[in-house]
Amino acid sequence: MSVQAPATTDLRQQVHDAAAAARTASRSLAALSTETKNRALHLAADTVLEHTHDILAANAEDLQAARTAGTPEAMLDRLALNPQRLDGIAAGLRQVAGLPDPIGEVLRGSTLPNGLQLRQQRVPLGVVGIVYEGRPNVTVDAFGLTLKSGNAVLLRGSSSAARSNAALVTALREALYEAGLPMDAVQLLPSADRASVTHLIQARGLVDVVIPRGGAGLIDAVVRDATVPTIETGVGNCHVYVDGAADLDVAERILLNSKTRRPSVCNSAESLLVDRTVADTALPRLVNALQDAGVTVHLDPTEEQLRAEFLSLDMAVAVVDGVDGAVAHINEYGTGHTEAIVTTDLAAAQRFTEGVDAAAVMVNASTAFTDGEQFGFGAEIGISTQKLHARGPMGLPELTSTKWIVWGSPLEGHVRPA
Amino acid sequence: MSVQAPATTDLRQQVHDAAAAARTASRSLAALSTETKNRALHLAADTVLEHTHDILAANAEDLQAARTAGTPEAMLDRLALNPQRLDGIAAGLRQVAGLPDPIGEVLRGSTLPNGLQLRQQRVPLGVVGIVYEGRPNVTVDAFGLTLKSGNAVLLRGSSSAARSNAALVTALREALYEAGLPMDAVQLLPSADRASVTHLIQARGLVDVVIPRGGAGLIDAVVRDATVPTIETGVGNCHVYVDGAADLDVAERILLNSKTRRPSVCNSAESLLVDRTVADTALPRLVNALQDAGVTVHLDPTEEQLRAEFLSLDMAVAVVDGVDGAVAHINEYGTGHTEAIVTTDLAAAQRFTEGVDAAAVMVNASTAFTDGEQFGFGAEIGISTQKLHARGPMGLPELTSTKWIVWGSPLEGHVRPA
Repeated sequence: MSVQAPATTDLRQQVHDAAAAARTASRSLAALSTETKNRALHLAADTVLEHTHDILAANAEDLQAARTAGTPEAMLDRLALNPQRLDGIAAGLRQVAGLPDPIGEVLRGSTLPNGLQLRQQRVPLGVVGIVYEGRPNVTVDAFGLTLKSGNAVLLRGSSSAARSNAALVTALREALYEAGLPMDAVQLLPSADRASVTHLIQARGLVDVVIPRGGAGLIDAVVRDATVPTIETGVGNCHVYVDGAADLDVAERILLNSKTRRPSVCNSAESLLVDRTVADTALPRLVNALQDAGVTVHLDPTEEQLRAEFLSLDMAVAVVDGVDGAVAHINEYGTGHTEAIVTTDLAAAQRFTEGVDAAAVMVNASTAFTDGEQFGFGAEIGISTQKLHARGPMGLPELTSTKWIVWGSPLEGHVRPA
Repeated sequence: MSVQAPATTDLRQQVHDAAAAARTASRSLAALSTETKNRALHLAADTVLEHTHDILAANAEDLQAARTAGTPEAMLDRLALNPQRLDGIAAGLRQVAGLPDPIGEVLRGSTLPNGLQLRQQRVPLGVVGIVYEGRPNVTVDAFGLTLKSGNAVLLRGSSSAARSNAALVTALREALYEAGLPMDAVQLLPSADRASVTHLIQARGLVDVVIPRGGAGLIDAVVRDATVPTIETGVGNCHVYVDGAADLDVAERILLNSKTRRPSVCNSAESLLVDRTVADTALPRLVNALQDAGVTVHLDPTEEQLRAEFLSLDMAVAVVDGVDGAVAHINEYGTGHTEAIVTTDLAAAQRFTEGVDAAAVMVNASTAFTDGEQFGFGAEIGISTQKLHARGPMGLPELTSTKWIVWGSPLEGHVRPA
């Protein structure tokens, strides 16, 4: 046959070949000692810094292409690398080396009445796919966390960062080689064609989990078309509810921090809910404070605005009937990320924490605290807004599965009665 | 408009309405005390027994229809109910009432340096869909486990058991009503049209998880088309590997138990692997023992037979090169359910338990032990063969998610520094 296979078939094969190589690599990674993994992480930090020149040159080309394409300044900033940022990226790898190794931890165990010895222990997931946008630092962060948890990773970054990502992955693979580990533990998938995402998320049996990191559109598309299990991350329509029993100084502080600290991240607040009983006094004060901080306040929000993850200095406002009204509103409009109540009333706090269906519920604390580093995990691969497997900030343990190991008698063997 | 909506749209709406009602019910269930749930489970056991006449009459109609349709005897047996089986079903509900309540358990917690108090606690998943075949007892088992874990359940059983399931669910809903709980905590979805499965598994946002219980075909279809997160269960191509250092008496005992105890269940063994170094002596003896027990032994298996979950008295046999050969074979052909090694060599056992990628690994024990009751969970909703969320037998904790509850200062409020 001289007929060429269509390009899409080639791409599919390419993704499947990468997944198969990752699977092979993952078998070695699962058995590595903590010491070996940590050594490789430090080596990777060194190698990234040694490759500074190549990485920044590649990044300059990505930036030039993005500028030519008219990419907005905020996105250019997310794409940009410089020596300081590379230092931060390398420091991140060293930090992951310092975290406890989740692999091998025994979660449950028992000796059954028949003498069987059961042990449920943490094992790596195997092959993890990450689909992400913009920032090239995710390339290295994801490598560090997946390596430490004994997984191989398939990275599908943005085409706008293709050259930067390739340069970074070259450095990481060189470090793996020097550490005597399989280089295919980290692979960059082609990003020019959107179809590589589809092939990745449909490589059931070859890939164990795919984690999409990005906007609602990306996540929806991945979840809709995936046959590989996925973990939804990071879409946050977060609310701050100011209860009738709130201290307004506290309310203002928490509201402003939740909204304005970093409006573009998923744990920032998008809606303010105010208890009807105090709306007359609380609302003008809080709205003024928001406006003084540069927030565009939507006082008569549309249904669309109530559902929006603005990721900007916009905020929808609604008046609700007490804590039950707030819970009902949030369960209708929220995305299950982070919800906060400001109150001095313990009963209201309890109704809110019990009633709200979200990954994290804050009482008298800013929504900005939902973050792996803030929670003391050391690092995070994303914030899960789904209920299966992991919910909230995901650290190393969330990148693992478990295995039951059962020991019977070597002399008699254990058999199950009929 | 006088034009009728097409039937499929109606069915979709019907499934979505059921899911919405289940969501509402689930909000009440999440807050129930353990005592209230246990009382409802005992009441449900009583009510099922009180409805014996109606249930058996409905079951007789299902059986008659199945017989007319030429259903094989083995399947008729799975469908059949009788007073003894109803006693067993009711006893199952009482047993679940006796199990520890997973809801509210605190999994992790800490006080951060800044004073924030973190607590990660178990909460219900919310709305759980179960898609299953044949056996009507699953209807009641699934209800018991989901209610105890605070979830509402949408049941999509087999059309062949439609009348039996309807009679059982009528009894369960009556019990909920009498217990003062929302009846929509358990609902039976229409089963005449296959599309109700599709609507259920695509009701993202309305349904939190779908668990398919059945053959590989059902599970593949659900996983392929689902947008709701799913948990794959119960496809088992399990192996028994007889190592060079095995005691052949032990090997024979474990092999026969793994293969013949109940060939139709997922934890039964389908393939025998024998170490090449002892094949001359071990193979004839083990094959004879299998044949004496009525097993059809496939000594020169096809690729298809090596991948088969026979669920019958068939067994494929292959010779492998030691424990590494066994691990490679299993990771190529297994389904990640249960794998067993028979050996007296500790190093071989360790290589096997570390190398095999499966939910459960048995050392000198029958594959038949992979079972929630055997593992001491009291009951199981299925055996997960995927790596995300749950792996192996799933009991009550596997029917839960978690929620982070974070307490800041009521006097100052906690805000995150820039």
